[in-house]
Amino acid sequence: MTAKKISLAEISTHIAGRLEGSPEIRITGLAELHLAQQGDLSFLISDADLSAAEQTKASAVLLPASLPPVSLPMIRVKDVSEAINTALELFAQPRQDPVGIHPQALVASDAVLAHDVSVGPYSVVESGSSIGAGSILQARCSVGRGCVIGEHCHLRQGVVVADGCRIGCGVMLGENVVIGSEGFGYRTRDGCHRQVPHLGAVRIGDDVEIGAGSCVARAKFGFTVIGDDTKIDSLVYIAHNVRVGEHCLIAAQAGIAGSARLGQRVVFGGQVGVRDHVAVGDGVTAGARTAIHHDVPAGSIVLGVPALERRQALREQAALRRLPELVSKVKKLQQRLDELESAADHS
Amino acid sequence: MTAKKISLAEISTHIAGRLEGSPEIRITGLAELHLAQQGDLSFLISDADLSAAEQTKASAVLLPASLPPVSLPMIRVKDVSEAINTALELFAQPRQDPVGIHPQALVASDAVLAHDVSVGPYSVVESGSSIGAGSILQARCSVGRGCVIGEHCHLRQGVVVADGCRIGCGVMLGENVVIGSEGFGYRTRDGCHRQVPHLGAVRIGDDVEIGAGSCVARAKFGFTVIGDDTKIDSLVYIAHNVRVGEHCLIAAQAGIAGSARLGQRVVFGGQVGVRDHVAVGDGVTAGARTAIHHDVPAGSIVLGVPALERRQALREQAALRRLPELVSKVKKLQQRLDELESAADHS
Amino acid sequence: MTAKKISLAEISTHIAGRLEGSPEIRITGLAELHLAQQGDLSFLISDADLSAAEQTKASAVLLPASLPPVSLPMIRVKDVSEAINTALELFAQPRQDPVGIHPQALVASDAVLAHDVSVGPYSVVESGSSIGAGSILQARCSVGRGCVIGEHCHLRQGVVVADGCRIGCGVMLGENVVIGSEGFGYRTRDGCHRQVPHLGAVRIGDDVEIGAGSCVARAKFGFTVIGDDTKIDSLVYIAHNVRVGEHCLIAAQAGIAGSARLGQRVVFGGQVGVRDHVAVGDGVTAGARTAIHHDVPAGSIVLGVPALERRQALREQAALRRLPELVSKVKKLQQRLDELESAADHS
Repeated sequence: MTAKKISLAEISTHIAGRLEGSPEIRITGLAELHLAQQGDLSFLISDADLSAAEQTKASAVLLPASLPPVSLPMIRVKDVSEAINTALELFAQPRQDPVGIHPQALVASDAVLAHDVSVGPYSVVESGSSIGAGSILQARCSVGRGCVIGEHCHLRQGVVVADGCRIGCGVMLGENVVIGSEGFGYRTRDGCHRQVPHLGAVRIGDDVEIGAGSCVARAKFGFTVIGDDTKIDSLVYIAHNVRVGEHCLIAAQAGIAGSARLGQRVVFGGQVGVRDHVAVGDGVTAGARTAIHHDVPAGSIVLGVPALERRQALREQAALRRLPELVSKVKKLQQRLDELESAADHS
Repeated sequence: MTAKKISLAEISTHIAGRLEGSPEIRITGLAELHLAQQGDLSFLISDADLSAAEQTKASAVLLPASLPPVSLPMIRVKDVSEAINTALELFAQPRQDPVGIHPQALVASDAVLAHDVSVGPYSVVESGSSIGAGSILQARCSVGRGCVIGEHCHLRQGVVVADGCRIGCGVMLGENVVIGSEGFGYRTRDGCHRQVPHLGAVRIGDDVEIGAGSCVARAKFGFTVIGDDTKIDSLVYIAHNVRVGEHCLIAAQAGIAGSARLGQRVVFGGQVGVRDHVAVGDGVTAGARTAIHHDVPAGSIVLGVPALERRQALREQAALRRLPELVSKVKKLQQRLDELESAADHS
Repeated sequence: MTAKKISLAEISTHIAGRLEGSPEIRITGLAELHLAQQGDLSFLISDADLSAAEQTKASAVLLPASLPPVSLPMIRVKDVSEAINTALELFAQPRQDPVGIHPQALVASDAVLAHDVSVGPYSVVESGSSIGAGSILQARCSVGRGCVIGEHCHLRQGVVVADGCRIGCGVMLGENVVIGSEGFGYRTRDGCHRQVPHLGAVRIGDDVEIGAGSCVARAKFGFTVIGDDTKIDSLVYIAHNVRVGEHCLIAAQAGIAGSARLGQRVVFGGQVGVRDHVAVGDGVTAGARTAIHHDVPAGSIVLGVPALERRQALREQAALRRLPELVSKVKKLQQRLDELESAADHS
């Protein structure tokens, strides 16, 4: 992969900035001021970066209108972070994955693969499954029996899609993701636990992305569902029969217990937990580490263990910070009251 | 996999229900009222489901005795959820996995496999290991040196059983489960951390099930032990030298630190944590997200961070909800007291 | 693997103990008193172990100077736990992994491997990568394009090192570890989330160890960095652009969000969380389950959700334990005050 070279003029136009310097300068990548090399575009966020900008080896910088000029080619932008993200798009390179079925892959004779599907080495596609055009399975993926995988999906190394699961189009499954693992449901008879058969599967919408190591369990019957355009980070667990709506963002290590339902545009910070059978409304935001034990109405912002409406959670937190002091205060009040009462008795 | 067809009569008998409708109707699966198709058995839980039952395409429904009849073949049952779980057993199909060693698998010449063991493609069984009758290793499993795997085990894709580990009979290991990973124990000398050798292994009892992505670390010496019939959910971490008793249920993303001991019939909600060397007694139940820092006596129900006896935890939680109000109250008391004292001074 | 036999004299010297018993006794391993067999070295920690020592089958025991002698060969030591760890080093056996590229592995023709590198079956090393002397890739590892892996590294089964990542020397990556997974960063346009390209990679220092199932995401640009001699436990998530310093210890299931920075010698208990962009100073210790929301100054010991300085966290916890009682106290104070006021009114 040789790096792309993109002119400062093209970058400036793409990020809607104002260029001050030579438009022909060729940029090969982005880097922080102190790490940048020749050819890199760097950036200043605030005054604090001015001295580092004096010494950077970067060929040009992004900076906000509010900062004084530096002695380097500059692109002035409204929002530096946003401009960085936009600029990165210019440098992204299309994946150069091979097309076709690797000779060291096993594809069942009755599996139906579009002509340009890639299946990496040591991957297995079992009987009755289909994979849409442009989809890529990297090395060591497993697709079980009767699965449907849409177009332009990307399954990274070690992904397992178990029997009967359905994946939409444009889906990215990170390394070692498991779709359709066994649900955790047991019946106890004579003191022994026997698994309830989980005969359902998982249905994943279009444009879903699921990060490395995450697992989505299959439904008892019907489907565990992940809605279109929902993005899930790494090491997340989605239990059996959960329904996650469209356009949700779920950060790393969240756990969503059986049959919970999330609406659309739900946003979870890291390590959030949701109790089984709970309903989380559309547009709910839950801060990192929140534990949702009860239904949450649409549009709420919640925090804490158990989850409280944000304002209440912060008020409680503030009060808790003052609790040791409150204990002392009450003790003093008691003493003063004792004295007053004793004075009253003697009066 | 063509679906099973089972008569309503057979289902009704199996779940000990009372059939009202044609016993010959053939059922092919279970589904919720609004998703059911012809051939499906659906169910009503409460009055709220009556209108959906009017419009369902299901061929029959389960419902409790308390509900009025619907215009569909019905099976009356005591407990609908329980009846669903029981009915699902009828529809479970035996796995149709191939028997034998896949040509693309590697089995050491001195490994001892029962004649009907299945080893999937790209799996590796190393020297000196044995695998009992009826056991299935799906694709891409690794069994290290000197392992013992009992009869009728099922190792899903990507499972690793590391050197010297012993797995009982009837054990299910979910996708990408790791048994016998390195323990996390270090000694610091001259500021550098050096791993303490972990020379032990892991011993897993009969009928244990461990969900996708979970890891059980090997012992420093002797064994990390998981007792018979214990069921562990996904993305759980069991550290070195932990002993988990029989018949426990441990939900997803729990973490049990080194040398902790769990008795029999311990039940953990999701994301529970247990500190190293702590002892959790028989029959303890810990709610989701509980952090167990100290020994917990047998039979306790605990909650919170750190874990408290349930009643105390709930009392504290209730008090915490009222804490901001308490702060104001104390402030007012102070003012009233100030006034009283000042009045007393002037009297 | 036949067990090593080591004389009691050698062990005693190695752990700097005082031997009381025959120096020639041959020891083959370590075990707890009640599990020990002939040939095992066992140990007593306190008085409570004296009765078990009467009945053990162990051939010798370690014990502290403070305990009375037992009727077995003994080695007196200052710190029993420490002595066990030191003794274990004597019994550790060098790995007997094969050297060379397994015929069922795929190594790109332009990959550069030192002559004694081992690549296990079903592993893939892609174009432009290099692997240093003495490094071992077990079965089913994937090394992407343009990676650099140093000398004497050990990648266990299922490890993925994605394109462009750099691994130092002496690094251990546990089973199913993923280095260089996609970062979780999105821009939302017209209600749809589009991934910000993550063009950077991961750089891992020398002597780093990362436990089974953990994931380290690649940077947006530049590198996500793990410093030399840092040890990370299982199922940990390190997000994009995080920098972890040298000599840190991070226990299982911790999650460190994007662009957070950890100094040197940071120690985290299990299930700790760090918010994005937060700076954790050198030598900080955070107890299990701590959630770090704000910068933590060097040398602090923190606890709780959100993280507080340890002393304050414990004071709050103690106060919280007394909160229900405090509520009652305030109620009583109110009543007494009511009475006093009413008495004052009537006087």
